[in-house]
Amino acid sequence: MVDITHKSNTLRTAIAQAIVKVSSQETIDAIQNKTVPKGDVFAMSKAAGLLGVKKTPDLLPDCHPLPIEYTGIEYKIDGLEIKVLVTVKTIYKTGVEVEAMHGASVVALNMYDMLKPIDKGIELHHIKLLEKTGGKSSFKDKFR
Amino acid sequence: MVDITHKSNTLRTAIAQAIVKVSSQETIDAIQNKTVPKGDVFAMSKAAGLLGVKKTPDLLPDCHPLPIEYTGIEYKIDGLEIKVLVTVKTIYKTGVEVEAMHGASVVALNMYDMLKPIDKGIELHHIKLLEKTGGKSSFKDKFR
Amino acid sequence: MVDITHKSNTLRTAIAQAIVKVSSQETIDAIQNKTVPKGDVFAMSKAAGLLGVKKTPDLLPDCHPLPIEYTGIEYKIDGLEIKVLVTVKTIYKTGVEVEAMHGASVVALNMYDMLKPIDKGIELHHIKLLEKTGGKSSFKDKFR
Amino acid sequence: MVDITHKSNTLRTAIAQAIVKVSSQETIDAIQNKTVPKGDVFAMSKAAGLLGVKKTPDLLPDCHPLPIEYTGIEYKIDGLEIKVLVTVKTIYKTGVEVEAMHGASVVALNMYDMLKPIDKGIELHHIKLLEKTGGKSSFKDKFR
Amino acid sequence: MVDITHKSNTLRTAIAQAIVKVSSQETIDAIQNKTVPKGDVFAMSKAAGLLGVKKTPDLLPDCHPLPIEYTGIEYKIDGLEIKVLVTVKTIYKTGVEVEAMHGASVVALNMYDMLKPIDKGIELHHIKLLEKTGGKSSFKDKFR
Amino acid sequence: MVDITHKSNTLRTAIAQAIVKVSSQETIDAIQNKTVPKGDVFAMSKAAGLLGVKKTPDLLPDCHPLPIEYTGIEYKIDGLEIKVLVTVKTIYKTGVEVEAMHGASVVALNMYDMLKPIDKGIELHHIKLLEKTGGKSSFKDKFR
Repeated sequence: MVDITHKSNTLRTAIAQAIVKVSSQETIDAIQNKTVPKGDVFAMSKAAGLLGVKKTPDLLPDCHPLPIEYTGIEYKIDGLEIKVLVTVKTIYKTGVEVEAMHGASVVALNMYDMLKPIDKGIELHHIKLLEKTGGKSSFKDKFR
Repeated sequence: MVDITHKSNTLRTAIAQAIVKVSSQETIDAIQNKTVPKGDVFAMSKAAGLLGVKKTPDLLPDCHPLPIEYTGIEYKIDGLEIKVLVTVKTIYKTGVEVEAMHGASVVALNMYDMLKPIDKGIELHHIKLLEKTGGKSSFKDKFR
Repeated sequence: MVDITHKSNTLRTAIAQAIVKVSSQETIDAIQNKTVPKGDVFAMSKAAGLLGVKKTPDLLPDCHPLPIEYTGIEYKIDGLEIKVLVTVKTIYKTGVEVEAMHGASVVALNMYDMLKPIDKGIELHHIKLLEKTGGKSSFKDKFR
Repeated sequence: MVDITHKSNTLRTAIAQAIVKVSSQETIDAIQNKTVPKGDVFAMSKAAGLLGVKKTPDLLPDCHPLPIEYTGIEYKIDGLEIKVLVTVKTIYKTGVEVEAMHGASVVALNMYDMLKPIDKGIELHHIKLLEKTGGKSSFKDKFR
Repeated sequence: MVDITHKSNTLRTAIAQAIVKVSSQETIDAIQNKTVPKGDVFAMSKAAGLLGVKKTPDLLPDCHPLPIEYTGIEYKIDGLEIKVLVTVKTIYKTGVEVEAMHGASVVALNMYDMLKPIDKGIELHHIKLLEKTGGKSSFKDKFR
Repeated sequence: MVDITHKSNTLRTAIAQAIVKVSSQETIDAIQNKTVPKGDVFAMSKAAGLLGVKKTPDLLPDCHPLPIEYTGIEYKIDGLEIKVLVTVKTIYKTGVEVEAMHGASVVALNMYDMLKPIDKGIELHHIKLLEKTGGKSSFKDKFR
């Protein structure tokens, strides 16, 4: 684990995405109409993702535990693709990119888990960092 | 959570993949030559993935806790893409698809976390189920 | 921890309750209309409770880890009181009473956590076992 | 999860209670004489509660992880009722009310779990905040 | 992780020990008289150890999750040495040696943590398996 | 849990050791040649230890959660003994001795778990603090 004792606290944000691709419009309708048998897919996956962001250092050996001071989770539907956007903020010595990416992956996996009884063709794509600020280099995905 | 009290134990296996796409051959070389500063990327990510598979029901609300009786993790390098393959087996009433997919995502995220100091352009793709056996329907990804 | 190696697997169910008492009808309305700023209180608390049931043996030293084969979470509104009902099932050597009660307490605490910005007078009451079946003695709360 | 990046660190304390109501004086005697078969109920439940306070953000999605700088656990016996008092302190941007309430509920549940072999009539009552200081509003339960 | 899908369930037990060596008789007296400021060292370390046994597969990547059906924790004082004995039982396809050893190490570490304010010279020794039964080979430490 | 709200942040380091004693040179060779069937013992045990350090407050009731800002894990082979050295740093109000000792014990236990299929005579010894700096008293083991 990298030594960060000499670094300064700064506000750091990261936005990560995951794409959940379903195989039919019926699946999108069931999510929006809240008729999926396991429950409200967006609300429950948000709960899982909020917890998942906080558990990142429990899963990744080199990841520093840090004070998660904000997590926001949004969904955007575009045809058969649902874009999951996870924004994380901290004021600490190291960034929250991996936390945001882990949160996005947990939200996407939970959607998969809740939807698999009604749709066998779901795939998870493009888990990636879209934007980060704070720290020595900012970054913005050029294709965003 | 779905009621599985009436179901029978059968041998169930699932194989999931994740693709880690790096941005240059130098990254692949550093992994293979074990010169990545954070350590041996394949061995440490395998450790993270073995633990991650077991933690799936801690992260996903509807996922049943179950006896993980085998987890295997393999890596295949193809140009700038590294395919992570996670195989999980259980003898239980419900399958291990989500466990395998979660394991694949943790391995991929850990590779990202260990590699980001040397490669800023890593993306995670195609986290999906490749194959499952046991339970009421077997499945094999047609493009595998 | 009690030795259960000599016991037999039987189907066991437990139903526990918790009462969340809010201080005004506005709070009830906000829950039902899904206008609570932190999100959908019932769906997110259900997610927390499903995870909480599974984490019971992580929190209580003498509690045996066991296969949770069903968890159901229901809400009943009666005036300013919301009754949380958690049903848990297993086929194992020991019962799931404490798991159901822990689930009920986590659901209730999460409702408190989500509602405290809009209602300062929330109390949690009567976390208790309502019913259990299986094992050497069945039980039914006489006042249910 | 609420954004707290703009808030200042202040000393914050919270005291929460839970009431464990047993059904006979024999149970109280067994606790005090340390003759409960599962062990010393007060000491072991204190251990569970100290761990439970720290695990609050693992269980409640919107709860910020924060530095727990003190937890104290006290018991007061009054007839057949045992009052569990949990005091938590932090110096951080947000309070520890829910942490104290979760700690009180874990202590109470563990007492229930250790006592159920000798007393089938235990109930948990009145898990509530008694007092908080620090942050924008202090609070003291008027009936305390 | 080794594939155990083909193995049969048998009763398996393991007994592990750890030695906690303190530096003065005053420490032993404080433990026995329950005057250690942090609380009852034996009861609280037992609680930590019971939880620790169950968390073994969360910490060790290759360790199979399994049903812990009994854990017993005993202490034997011999001069300045306290022997911690942890017995674990399961009926499963693989043994509980590492679980017993992890439990012994957690009990010993917790004793260290509770005692360090009053004794700066504590060491932990001889964490080892004393006995195992069940599985393809039984074992008994010859020096026990 | 000790109240640390009045204490100041200082840089604190701790170095702990564990000794893993194997029973034959073949075991040492298998570790060095990376021919142990379960995988690369040093890299995977390092991953387990990095996670283990962070989980210390989840296992020990009185241990404060704190920002782990560095963990380093080293191995030194001397005949049939492997010395595991774990260095932990924080800038906080309380030290990281127990975290370093827990990390050392998890690394050692994982080595045991990975090696037991090829060596039945492994013991873990001398888990102890070698050095600490920061806080009101520094300390250096005189025999180091």
